[in-house]
Amino acid sequence: MDYDIKDRGLADKGQLRIEWASKSMPVLNSIKERFSQDRPLSGLRISACLHITTETALLAQTLKAGGASVVLCASNPLSTQDDVAASLVANDEIPVFSIKGEDTDTYYSHILSALKKMPNLTMDDGADLVSSLHFIALDKWDEVSPAIRKWGLSLAKEHRDTLITNVMGGTEETTTGVIRLRSMEKDQVLQFPVISVNDANTKHLFDNRYGTGQSTVDGILRATNRLLAGSSFVISGYGWCGRGVATRAKGHGAKVIICEVDPLKALEAVMDGFDVMPMAQAAKIGDIFCTLTGNKNAIRKEHFLDMKDGAIISNSGHFNVELDLPGLEQASTSNRKMREFVEEYTLPNGHRVYLLGEGRLINLAAAEGHPSSVMDMSFANQALSMEYLSKEHKNLDNKVYPVPVPIDQEIARLKLASMGVEIDTLTPEQEKYLSSWEMGT
Amino acid sequence: MDYDIKDRGLADKGQLRIEWASKSMPVLNSIKERFSQDRPLSGLRISACLHITTETALLAQTLKAGGASVVLCASNPLSTQDDVAASLVANDEIPVFSIKGEDTDTYYSHILSALKKMPNLTMDDGADLVSSLHFIALDKWDEVSPAIRKWGLSLAKEHRDTLITNVMGGTEETTTGVIRLRSMEKDQVLQFPVISVNDANTKHLFDNRYGTGQSTVDGILRATNRLLAGSSFVISGYGWCGRGVATRAKGHGAKVIICEVDPLKALEAVMDGFDVMPMAQAAKIGDIFCTLTGNKNAIRKEHFLDMKDGAIISNSGHFNVELDLPGLEQASTSNRKMREFVEEYTLPNGHRVYLLGEGRLINLAAAEGHPSSVMDMSFANQALSMEYLSKEHKNLDNKVYPVPVPIDQEIARLKLASMGVEIDTLTPEQEKYLSSWEMGT
Amino acid sequence: MDYDIKDRGLADKGQLRIEWASKSMPVLNSIKERFSQDRPLSGLRISACLHITTETALLAQTLKAGGASVVLCASNPLSTQDDVAASLVANDEIPVFSIKGEDTDTYYSHILSALKKMPNLTMDDGADLVSSLHFIALDKWDEVSPAIRKWGLSLAKEHRDTLITNVMGGTEETTTGVIRLRSMEKDQVLQFPVISVNDANTKHLFDNRYGTGQSTVDGILRATNRLLAGSSFVISGYGWCGRGVATRAKGHGAKVIICEVDPLKALEAVMDGFDVMPMAQAAKIGDIFCTLTGNKNAIRKEHFLDMKDGAIISNSGHFNVELDLPGLEQASTSNRKMREFVEEYTLPNGHRVYLLGEGRLINLAAAEGHPSSVMDMSFANQALSMEYLSKEHKNLDNKVYPVPVPIDQEIARLKLASMGVEIDTLTPEQEKYLSSWEMGT
Amino acid sequence: MDYDIKDRGLADKGQLRIEWASKSMPVLNSIKERFSQDRPLSGLRISACLHITTETALLAQTLKAGGASVVLCASNPLSTQDDVAASLVANDEIPVFSIKGEDTDTYYSHILSALKKMPNLTMDDGADLVSSLHFIALDKWDEVSPAIRKWGLSLAKEHRDTLITNVMGGTEETTTGVIRLRSMEKDQVLQFPVISVNDANTKHLFDNRYGTGQSTVDGILRATNRLLAGSSFVISGYGWCGRGVATRAKGHGAKVIICEVDPLKALEAVMDGFDVMPMAQAAKIGDIFCTLTGNKNAIRKEHFLDMKDGAIISNSGHFNVELDLPGLEQASTSNRKMREFVEEYTLPNGHRVYLLGEGRLINLAAAEGHPSSVMDMSFANQALSMEYLSKEHKNLDNKVYPVPVPIDQEIARLKLASMGVEIDTLTPEQEKYLSSWEMGT
Repeated sequence: MDYDIKDRGLADKGQLRIEWASKSMPVLNSIKERFSQDRPLSGLRISACLHITTETALLAQTLKAGGASVVLCASNPLSTQDDVAASLVANDEIPVFSIKGEDTDTYYSHILSALKKMPNLTMDDGADLVSSLHFIALDKWDEVSPAIRKWGLSLAKEHRDTLITNVMGGTEETTTGVIRLRSMEKDQVLQFPVISVNDANTKHLFDNRYGTGQSTVDGILRATNRLLAGSSFVISGYGWCGRGVATRAKGHGAKVIICEVDPLKALEAVMDGFDVMPMAQAAKIGDIFCTLTGNKNAIRKEHFLDMKDGAIISNSGHFNVELDLPGLEQASTSNRKMREFVEEYTLPNGHRVYLLGEGRLINLAAAEGHPSSVMDMSFANQALSMEYLSKEHKNLDNKVYPVPVPIDQEIARLKLASMGVEIDTLTPEQEKYLSSWEMGT
Repeated sequence: MDYDIKDRGLADKGQLRIEWASKSMPVLNSIKERFSQDRPLSGLRISACLHITTETALLAQTLKAGGASVVLCASNPLSTQDDVAASLVANDEIPVFSIKGEDTDTYYSHILSALKKMPNLTMDDGADLVSSLHFIALDKWDEVSPAIRKWGLSLAKEHRDTLITNVMGGTEETTTGVIRLRSMEKDQVLQFPVISVNDANTKHLFDNRYGTGQSTVDGILRATNRLLAGSSFVISGYGWCGRGVATRAKGHGAKVIICEVDPLKALEAVMDGFDVMPMAQAAKIGDIFCTLTGNKNAIRKEHFLDMKDGAIISNSGHFNVELDLPGLEQASTSNRKMREFVEEYTLPNGHRVYLLGEGRLINLAAAEGHPSSVMDMSFANQALSMEYLSKEHKNLDNKVYPVPVPIDQEIARLKLASMGVEIDTLTPEQEKYLSSWEMGT
Repeated sequence: MDYDIKDRGLADKGQLRIEWASKSMPVLNSIKERFSQDRPLSGLRISACLHITTETALLAQTLKAGGASVVLCASNPLSTQDDVAASLVANDEIPVFSIKGEDTDTYYSHILSALKKMPNLTMDDGADLVSSLHFIALDKWDEVSPAIRKWGLSLAKEHRDTLITNVMGGTEETTTGVIRLRSMEKDQVLQFPVISVNDANTKHLFDNRYGTGQSTVDGILRATNRLLAGSSFVISGYGWCGRGVATRAKGHGAKVIICEVDPLKALEAVMDGFDVMPMAQAAKIGDIFCTLTGNKNAIRKEHFLDMKDGAIISNSGHFNVELDLPGLEQASTSNRKMREFVEEYTLPNGHRVYLLGEGRLINLAAAEGHPSSVMDMSFANQALSMEYLSKEHKNLDNKVYPVPVPIDQEIARLKLASMGVEIDTLTPEQEKYLSSWEMGT
Repeated sequence: MDYDIKDRGLADKGQLRIEWASKSMPVLNSIKERFSQDRPLSGLRISACLHITTETALLAQTLKAGGASVVLCASNPLSTQDDVAASLVANDEIPVFSIKGEDTDTYYSHILSALKKMPNLTMDDGADLVSSLHFIALDKWDEVSPAIRKWGLSLAKEHRDTLITNVMGGTEETTTGVIRLRSMEKDQVLQFPVISVNDANTKHLFDNRYGTGQSTVDGILRATNRLLAGSSFVISGYGWCGRGVATRAKGHGAKVIICEVDPLKALEAVMDGFDVMPMAQAAKIGDIFCTLTGNKNAIRKEHFLDMKDGAIISNSGHFNVELDLPGLEQASTSNRKMREFVEEYTLPNGHRVYLLGEGRLINLAAAEGHPSSVMDMSFANQALSMEYLSKEHKNLDNKVYPVPVPIDQEIARLKLASMGVEIDTLTPEQEKYLSSWEMGT
């Protein structure tokens, strides 16, 4: 078996950690169990370009249990857990191509290794795998890395065509990837159907509110050990993520202040009992700031200059562009590392501002990202979407599709069952009433 | 001026109450002020079939201030506030045709009075006015009341056609009405565009969560004076209304139990920290029950029979069908009125169950319905939709339209301004980033 | 049987209401049941000067069930529920001397009727009965009403002595009364032991937080029907009552602002996530104000003048002195009644301030006071303290005593049992550990 | 300067960490500033036996700034932060005798070093220093370590007497220490006054609720990375600590279950909206357990055997005796380490139970203990009590005293000021009203 990982000797450590995650992933485990009996993916090759983490390991095991031949490469050069990669190779005989901290060339050579698998199904977290596939098939050689170009050009045209006609369909985990794919769909270059796992209710409603909510506060506490009770906690952005963090910060006794640009969301924040004000005002009174806007420069130089001495700033939104770090750098007279994940910037007025985790997602930088039980549902959507694509791909167009509602519902049902929670079912009489009602009598 | 109300002598009392409501309706007041300068409805006739309440009075004043000639009739024979009707007639010279407790014939004769106005714009709360208009125009004489039929048939065909071609468009306040109208649209019988006010975010997000949430608990407390702290409060239905009530009940220290049929909503309830179980289990442990399902028989005979002695049951959902009242009647050996809004039913096992407000919406039966500040936004949508229809009707098809997003946003903005809340605005750089992002680079 | 009530014909209505209250008073009911078997008060005469309400009715029934001969008079000329008085007389054969709205002379003549009973045990709510008894016994004729003086002087000295030596002890419900009694104890004039029911944990911890908390918000909603979500709710005083109201207002989505004079309580409020500021600042931003300070003039003329147009002011603390009403009167240019329990005051700057319930306790003025299930515990303390005094009076000095801890604990235990809640008990090993620990090894 | 620390080279790292803590300790910093001007401890020798942490470092700096000559030794062999010790020695010239992980002999030899200082004032965290002093003075040689005995016996009797007569007084930080001291007071062996810092409101009300509340949840999250939302979180003990954790767990969306032995606290838990049940029931449904009882064996073998597969158990109360670890050991068929701070125990039925941090205080084991801003108030009490003792010791008996109320209030006032929070002050009129009221007119 071919693979490229850091150190196979880390396998035992990795396995323990996969086990720990697996204990909070009952939905995916129940799918794995069914898959190992039904073998719905029997004979299919799956190339998955994902963060190589404990939860991904269980997903890969599930696909393999379903009969698929799986290969994994990293979707980000920094997120690989090398011990998990080792365990997948050593204990599960699943080839992995991924080393934490790999350079860009290596990163793309690993994607290449996944492409060479000639997949029937793809999984993406950012659309790097799918776009590479398309660039090869569409002769867009300028768009790909040298290694992929070299390999692609080495293939006969016919072979390159096969590469993409082989693919029944794929899934995409992230908003970013989905945007790229929709753009491809719009330009009519997309060559197979892709399911947007990101849009499943059992993903985004839970990831964002409960996952980001808890793990962001967790990350801030690990980085700072500050008391939240009584502090002024400024949250920029009142989308699902911002609401999640607001709820948790309030639950810790903080006075939460919301900054928003959308009047409707701002009004909801007011009605939910939060203070709402522009960042220009909030900057002066906040003790802790966190951005979750999906936009850039939510906190800017002029805001940093107005902050109290000791203010703490962090980001848990999109990218590290939410904080205007160049502006902070420029405004400050000196900076130094105070403790792990905490960098002190001194401003001309003598005030010091503390940047957490270099402005990267604080729940990943200083804590452990989403708890496994949240990823359980995201990855259950992945697994069931693979099964769905393998069965239904002939009835699908080359479009971006949402996760089918029955899959979404089934996952919620399995999650409830795993928690021992029973719910009501409609009586025939109620079903009739509801449908007559909805049809308008 | 022609009108039909209970007692013009009630005008002073009505005016005071309209004033009190008006103080919590800053958005509609600001629209009224602008209307009185811009006169956007100048020369237009508006027939409005709405609940005749203090808030409706302010809406009617607003439309009149905008230059319209307004006539009001009731959308429900029981909801008319006679003092408000009197004040509108006596103080605002707005003709009203509505008497609380009027019989069905009178109810329709009042709608007829509104029709005779030959409106350019209509407002509905249940689509009774619009459907009557259509029945006349479409010669569907079986569907209308005798009075309307008689009048309709007395008109020349040409006149009847004018009746409906006169109408630029209408608005509809309720879900029920919208369902009827969509059905008409589907059957291609709808003769003018209608805006579904119900779907505006500034209506349903606020009405349901904050309005129903507070007023339902308010109604239950007024009816019972029971302590909620430490009680088991069972809520059937975890939609927006159910969430609103759950939040308020929890805020009173109750242990909240959620019953749901939708696994996704049930899972959200679990993650929000609530107990979730089937009604069959909840029936045995609840102290207070409230249905908000939009379905019938959410609590049934078999559940009543399992309840603890002293259990309290109420509905704040749809209609009084959410509780299986015939089943309760049938199951009980005797019943008597305990106090206002509280009826005691004794079951064969000796347990007593207390029905609040005859199973009708408890926030209307025992309290005062939505606070005015919630209606402020609903009716601001009404007023601005009238203005929009008057300007844009020629560009609209004979369809049901949502409230235009800019109107929705404007209302949120006005509400925030009325509360003295300022929010952020996107910088040009952010706008660019966002749009480039959404377009997918 | 001698009595003085408004209308015996109201008995049926009263009985229904007593029944309704009784359903939320399981602890007192269980004591009543035991009393009716054990008859611990057999042969004793009890004179009780209390608010004549549904809950008091159940207390009187309980004492009678215990074998006592009970007479009731009002502790406040305004709080009597005439239908309850009628039911006690007609259905329970318990003499009551109390008419709602009685004048001062009648009020004292009713106390006199209770005195004439020559009680063995007394119950007070403000110490009027006990102090009258002492004034007679101590020849302090200037301190009592003419009727009592006349009767007292008509008694032989020896008889007057008997009047007080007859008394084994008494109970007192309120802080006010306890302060008077402690003062008497300090001056060594107290002639029998009195138990301060007010200090029982099962009274003040529950009354103040849960009772006042819920009923205050209830009163404000009934008076105003305003939406609390998103409003600024200013609470003056962060004692148990203030905390109760703060919790409930927050639970309704309000932004709660606390005003305090005690830095420790203020700091707790901050740590609990509330905004804390002086009234001078809060006055400018509050939508709704409520005082619960136990002090006078918590909101003063200078504050009223700074309030926003439409501000609502209320009191749920001590007396109506918490709001500086003379100052409000003086500052305003006019006033008028807006709706029941709402009075509008117009200030020189045109702003209007709305006073609720004339500044009296808003939970009593506009709602129904504490829910019965809270009074259940207060009055269980009363009943068990009567039993305790009857047994232990010989071992007690002429002092004010707290409710014995075992009674307090027993009431909590009974309340839990009535709710079906079981709790842990210490294992022998744990008891030993705990006691060794507390003794310091 | 004599000292005994691990590595002076760690001073820089220590200083950075002291700086970080100091930023959340504004109250102690303001006292330090005043002390450096007033020099109230000028010429006094202070021996402090405390946990050698960043916060203690600031306390030592404060005392030195006040003019005292300070020496520090550890109050626990495991809690020393060696870098902090190094910084105190290298940067502050404060002698420290303390090395993390020191054996018992070294531990007591370090206490001896503090004794040799011949202190005028003592500070204790468990009473080890004060008791050693007394044992020497009282010739109780069996009670002390060999090193101390040897030194003590080497002193002339007169010298030994001086050792204790030198001491003006001391302070004690913990409940445990206070219990020992009260026992000494009772036995009339206490030779100087001791102030119980533990009883200050600004200590225990904040430490327990806000400090333990946040840091316990923090520790559990760091150890497990589990999602709390939707989980059943069982808390044994509803004292201040338990309430703190309950509030934070609820704030994370957990369903909180309380186990209690005290009916009053149990009833409060019910009224606060929590589920209350015996551990025997809770054991079967909990996902996460945490003990905060101050007692032993709050969770026992029989409970472990009933737990769900995957249950997590932890302690944040007193000592590691709250969980019956020998019982767990005995009941399980195997155990292994799953990840840092997580040990898996497999039970005969195959269920696995996860013990966090070996049952030691989880907020110290897996997180960083109380945030500095909480310790700020505890140590401000220490500093001001030292000043108080230096001035008032002649007026004090050899007893355990509470922190004087004015100090407690002053600390709350300083904390509020440091947060920029202003509060009301009583008007002369209000002061008069209040005092007349309290005196009972």
